[in-house]
Amino acid sequence: MSRSAADPLDRHRFPIDEWRLVESSYSTDDLGASETCFAVGNGYLGMRGNPEEGRESYAHGTFINGFHETWPIHHAEEAYGFAQTGQTIVNVPDTKVLKLYVDDEPLLLADADLESYERSIDFAAGVLTRDLVWRTPAGKRVKVSSTRMVSFTERHLAIMTMEVTLLDGDAPVVISSQVLNRQDGKDEYHVKDAAMGSGFDPRKAQGFASRVLDPISTWAGDDRILMGYRCMNSEMTLGVGVDHTIVTDNPYVPMLSAENDYGKMVYRVDARAGQSIVVTKTVAYHTSKGVPARELVDRCVRTLDRVRRHGTELHHEEQKLWLDEFWANADVEIPGQPAVQQAVRWNLFQIAQASARAEQNGIPAKGVTGSGYEGHYFWDTEIYVLPFLTYTLPVMARNALRFRYQMLPSAQRRAAVLSQRGALFPWRTINGEEASAYYAAGTAQYHIDADISYALCRYVEATGDDEFMLREGVDILVETARMWADLGFWRSNGGETFNIHGVTGPDEYTTVVNNNLFTNVMAKDNLQKAADHVRRLRDLSPDGYAALADRLDLDEAEIEEWERAAAGMSIPFDENLGIHPQDDHFLDGEVWELAKTPEDHRPLLLHYHPLVIYRFQVLKQADVCMALFLQGDSFTQAEKRADFEYYDPITTGDSTLSAIVQSIIAAEVGYYEMAMNYFHAGLFVDLADLHDNASEGVHVASTGGVWAMLVHGFGGLRDHHGRVNLDPRLPTSWERLTFRLNLAGSRVRADLTSDELVLTLETGDPVTVRVRDEPVEVSGTIIVALADQGPRLQGALGTLPLISGRREDGSMITAGVPDPSLQDS
Amino acid sequence: MSRSAADPLDRHRFPIDEWRLVESSYSTDDLGASETCFAVGNGYLGMRGNPEEGRESYAHGTFINGFHETWPIHHAEEAYGFAQTGQTIVNVPDTKVLKLYVDDEPLLLADADLESYERSIDFAAGVLTRDLVWRTPAGKRVKVSSTRMVSFTERHLAIMTMEVTLLDGDAPVVISSQVLNRQDGKDEYHVKDAAMGSGFDPRKAQGFASRVLDPISTWAGDDRILMGYRCMNSEMTLGVGVDHTIVTDNPYVPMLSAENDYGKMVYRVDARAGQSIVVTKTVAYHTSKGVPARELVDRCVRTLDRVRRHGTELHHEEQKLWLDEFWANADVEIPGQPAVQQAVRWNLFQIAQASARAEQNGIPAKGVTGSGYEGHYFWDTEIYVLPFLTYTLPVMARNALRFRYQMLPSAQRRAAVLSQRGALFPWRTINGEEASAYYAAGTAQYHIDADISYALCRYVEATGDDEFMLREGVDILVETARMWADLGFWRSNGGETFNIHGVTGPDEYTTVVNNNLFTNVMAKDNLQKAADHVRRLRDLSPDGYAALADRLDLDEAEIEEWERAAAGMSIPFDENLGIHPQDDHFLDGEVWELAKTPEDHRPLLLHYHPLVIYRFQVLKQADVCMALFLQGDSFTQAEKRADFEYYDPITTGDSTLSAIVQSIIAAEVGYYEMAMNYFHAGLFVDLADLHDNASEGVHVASTGGVWAMLVHGFGGLRDHHGRVNLDPRLPTSWERLTFRLNLAGSRVRADLTSDELVLTLETGDPVTVRVRDEPVEVSGTIIVALADQGPRLQGALGTLPLISGRREDGSMITAGVPDPSLQDS
Repeated sequence: MSRSAADPLDRHRFPIDEWRLVESSYSTDDLGASETCFAVGNGYLGMRGNPEEGRESYAHGTFINGFHETWPIHHAEEAYGFAQTGQTIVNVPDTKVLKLYVDDEPLLLADADLESYERSIDFAAGVLTRDLVWRTPAGKRVKVSSTRMVSFTERHLAIMTMEVTLLDGDAPVVISSQVLNRQDGKDEYHVKDAAMGSGFDPRKAQGFASRVLDPISTWAGDDRILMGYRCMNSEMTLGVGVDHTIVTDNPYVPMLSAENDYGKMVYRVDARAGQSIVVTKTVAYHTSKGVPARELVDRCVRTLDRVRRHGTELHHEEQKLWLDEFWANADVEIPGQPAVQQAVRWNLFQIAQASARAEQNGIPAKGVTGSGYEGHYFWDTEIYVLPFLTYTLPVMARNALRFRYQMLPSAQRRAAVLSQRGALFPWRTINGEEASAYYAAGTAQYHIDADISYALCRYVEATGDDEFMLREGVDILVETARMWADLGFWRSNGGETFNIHGVTGPDEYTTVVNNNLFTNVMAKDNLQKAADHVRRLRDLSPDGYAALADRLDLDEAEIEEWERAAAGMSIPFDENLGIHPQDDHFLDGEVWELAKTPEDHRPLLLHYHPLVIYRFQVLKQADVCMALFLQGDSFTQAEKRADFEYYDPITTGDSTLSAIVQSIIAAEVGYYEMAMNYFHAGLFVDLADLHDNASEGVHVASTGGVWAMLVHGFGGLRDHHGRVNLDPRLPTSWERLTFRLNLAGSRVRADLTSDELVLTLETGDPVTVRVRDEPVEVSGTIIVALADQGPRLQGALGTLPLISGRREDGSMITAGVPDPSLQDS
Repeated sequence: MSRSAADPLDRHRFPIDEWRLVESSYSTDDLGASETCFAVGNGYLGMRGNPEEGRESYAHGTFINGFHETWPIHHAEEAYGFAQTGQTIVNVPDTKVLKLYVDDEPLLLADADLESYERSIDFAAGVLTRDLVWRTPAGKRVKVSSTRMVSFTERHLAIMTMEVTLLDGDAPVVISSQVLNRQDGKDEYHVKDAAMGSGFDPRKAQGFASRVLDPISTWAGDDRILMGYRCMNSEMTLGVGVDHTIVTDNPYVPMLSAENDYGKMVYRVDARAGQSIVVTKTVAYHTSKGVPARELVDRCVRTLDRVRRHGTELHHEEQKLWLDEFWANADVEIPGQPAVQQAVRWNLFQIAQASARAEQNGIPAKGVTGSGYEGHYFWDTEIYVLPFLTYTLPVMARNALRFRYQMLPSAQRRAAVLSQRGALFPWRTINGEEASAYYAAGTAQYHIDADISYALCRYVEATGDDEFMLREGVDILVETARMWADLGFWRSNGGETFNIHGVTGPDEYTTVVNNNLFTNVMAKDNLQKAADHVRRLRDLSPDGYAALADRLDLDEAEIEEWERAAAGMSIPFDENLGIHPQDDHFLDGEVWELAKTPEDHRPLLLHYHPLVIYRFQVLKQADVCMALFLQGDSFTQAEKRADFEYYDPITTGDSTLSAIVQSIIAAEVGYYEMAMNYFHAGLFVDLADLHDNASEGVHVASTGGVWAMLVHGFGGLRDHHGRVNLDPRLPTSWERLTFRLNLAGSRVRADLTSDELVLTLETGDPVTVRVRDEPVEVSGTIIVALADQGPRLQGALGTLPLISGRREDGSMITAGVPDPSLQDS
């Protein structure tokens, strides 16, 4: 894809459409990324955008959230407490395949003479569509239209159609609908190692050495294929069912067959010109941790029967209605910026595809669009995705938090292994057990406990869902606070402070440090919030409190211990530079000269030994700046600006998570141009494959980050301690920015222009928000005039090239004495 | 084995003999440790002390130094620069087996009715001997005497004998001499996991999943069995040859056969009472990196032919003569302390067994007595073994240093991978490639470069071998200095200092730190010594210097850069406590309360996650104290005492290397009782299996350390910058300590009593040594009267229980202000 700073997509091939991602010509150049970008899913079931014919691909992938195989992790050198159980999302049997033959010649996109071609995914309809006209080797033109949809309303259901019409003359047509276990076939996922060049990439899933899916049952009949499997090690079970209908006036013969790992329904049609053939393939997947595979097959039958009864059209209608509601809550509009608008909607649509029906599962780093990061759940969900869900689709936020609650027993066991009280959530996991095989950048990221607590409190404060907090959420809060209280220790270092040693912050280019600023600020919040909420619940519901105090063996002394630890938390600050060191000793290190690092040595992690990287002042992703964002009320504006100016030039942006925070803080401190550049770098992570690994699946955290950059960054939303405040900073090139917020069950629309913010209560009771710290009661429509938004800093940190998400000039800036004009504004 | 503080061996079973290790009754309780303690070897070939019958064992092991298989290291999570090639010493075909049957009943020690039993290894004869009288199930008494010897003079040769005499009556006797490839058999090494209890132990070798030794040729004839093998991956080749003779007046039938992996020579004897049967088994092993296996088999034939020609008796005589010379150079005598004397000689004998014929190989951590640490070479050799070799058998020290020189190209490549100039020696290796799969406690120990340079300079300074330095040694010195100069960086932190960040010192309970004191002090020495020696060589041999300057692309500017870095080296010191922090931030951490750590949670590494251990002030082994010893002239006496008092209570001694240094420094600063306790803890590491892992092989570094505790600790030898000084501190309970030093080709004997030190020139030209800083020219015999040796500190740090090598009371001592009476004495 050709790229420019303003719009990195080749608009000849990917024309702008505000409600669709459209591909107007076929190419094998970027199969991996395009399969990801055209994937369909509902948070439970996901199908990569492989072509119907099932041939050329980077990776044929179908994934079910949480459906994984386990394997023993063999550490090259073992140590006590190292993660033991590897977990990898399984590539479930592929039902996408609908092969087409005309005159016995197969349609193969890579070779086919295509008179026309368009593939698009429609964000309002929730359907992937492909239309093409193929001139066969015999010179016959064939119109082929297909659709693929994973239902948001029927969690287990996918519907595919293929319509074939001969335009020029008669011919024998064969449509072969297949079900293929690719996980265990020669054609398994990751046959190619296309993108990265280097011999390894820790961000990719590993292959399995032996069979994963054990076939339990296979059946074909009644136009259906049914298969049951059990994972060899995890013992998770799977049922797959495929149903077929054909509508045509042409004579045809159906032939159905199935064996282990391979089933097919073949329609042999004597097609006449102009007589269409429409094959509809209805697919159901059911999975479980304990239910026998045969029973899951029965569930598939019931799903398929229901679709037979109601017809597929109903499901397409429901899909549309569901998305209408989604967009009513979640849409962000940027009128006059169609390329941005399209990309924004694609990103938001991805969050829906990753989370809508995740339900008792978490939201994996790649949603259900790829096996990158092995299908694991990370902190990304809590920090980058939950804010969006909290303010637009709070039910989904609640589900994601309940998922963590269900993981609590595993987290308690993990804390014990790490010699701590309370609970320590695993850095990466599917089944709740720690699966990080590299502790320095994994298990050491204790901050995940605080991230989860942060997202929990934010959810409860924004929605008022005290019932959830009282019954389940508070257990997370208490057990994480206990971990922090136990992990830290008091130390006299110029005053008695509470110190947290030997942890890693979000930035994985510096590991196992003392008093990581982000960790300490977040832990402080975790401890204080635990105390606050427990006290609040005691006032709110004495009975409920009694139950929880009993359940958690909680007393006042412990609550006071948390408050003391929070109050005494060590917050590193360097008086000399006037900035917050990333950790106690970060500033002791040499500064990595990014300007002297060859472009072909990026990202650093693929070209330097960890020991080398760790030795320097260089960041993979924002760390202090992340704290400035999440705990913004703990820092002055002057501090934020000084910190940003110090860290931005040494931040590589080798993580896609970095640009998001850099954009938000750049906007806050006044670097509007940089904010916009980082916004673009985040917006096009997958669409323009800016990190060369979109092939592994959608960067779901980054899609959530797009919303964050819009609403937190440009919209200026902050919600410290549940107090929603808007301090807007509309980019000068934009005429308007419209977004929605769900607050305590009411929905408020915010229309931001350069000189005013219009707040409209769309549903529910009046709510109070603040605009630049002034309380505004929103009932009906309120117009708030906006004064100038403060100094506009330009170019001070150099210019950021869009495509890499980092600046060319990596030279250092000495932050020096803060600008007095910015002091504590 | 029952243990007491004074003598931890059960003297009923292991009676004291000053020249032999003797076992007077058989037990299966401690097979692993006893196989190690009764192993025979010559530094090239080693055979564990398995019984002749080849049955009950912890591990049947035969090892050849450097003969290894390679395998790809699979990191659970890969990163750039991680070690790629695993290397494991191979268990070569077992030729020790001589099975005995009487009346077709096998002799099985575990079940046998033994009327008498004695096994001993003779330190002067270099032979393992076993004598027993067996009462067979049929009630016949059979005298069985056997010997096993690995020749110090014929590197590839081992000789075994078995003499069987029926004492009571006639019977059919069968002696079956076998050759078994156990590496690839069901009976492979490490069938049992006896010792450690825990599910893993990083200090043990891993098993191979597939065949290691590919049989190339097998032949039997002429009373011989010949086998050729090639390692599947490393492609190293091996020839094994076994020859037999029998001497008896009884009629007998020999039966010879061989197939892949299994050969045997069976003697069926119609034995008459009183008529002895003597079977002699002569064994040759040859190995190579490039020579075909068949050629190695030919070499075996030549070795065996030579023995046939000369007879085995000659080799036993030569063995004795070789050991006479060894003890003349190396013996340390402690008259009146027979238990200590025995243990000391066993330890020194182990160094001979580990190093005598290592030649172009290094000295593995376990010598050739076990597969612990996979047969790898570490820094242990340079720091714990080379001093002994330098002062007693300098030719062997030279060989070990040449081995490192030959590794230099690999070390240069490794430095490049780690983004450094110069050379970085691998932390653990056989073939020169880094094999440490856990970088934090492996690759990060950059100090290995300085350790090698230190041993090199010490060797050259003690022997005057400038020829070696000029031609090869200097390359090591220059390339390591280059690595340090490139690794460190200048920083303004209260004066401009040269800083080394992100490294691990000897203590593996704190990793990847900034300015590890030991590393910095050793690197400083490395840089300065490189400059000094290069300048010295320039004066000594202008031509030689021109060649080396050209070879190494060396100029004056670079030499000056080293000197600046050395002079500016950051040496952490805490004014408040008056001690040297182990690293810049060591004192920031919480102190681990060893007193509260249950005994069943030791060693810590098997019971706590590394992240937990690293967070605390707790040591696996001496670190600062090691610097106090090796670079003693850089510290005042007061500093040494303060440092020792601070670190000793938080040193677990979980490494066997710890007690050695603790003993030496305790002796230096005046804690004589502790020095003696640590001496015992080091002396009996293997003999009393104090660390529960003697089963994996002899702790060779610890055996070298025994000499160090005697000569450096009690003898008070220091040799900073080649200036040999003796500051003796004879333990009050000892009447005398005698040791020898080889100095510039002369041998000096030192006889130390409580009030005088007698120095005698045993061979060579007169030499000058210093006694308590007074120069003494030794020619003939010189008696130096000794004044009192300073304050005798007692009990201040609590008492040290012998068996664990650590104190029961782990409570902290605040070093406080140094005692002025000790200031800079």
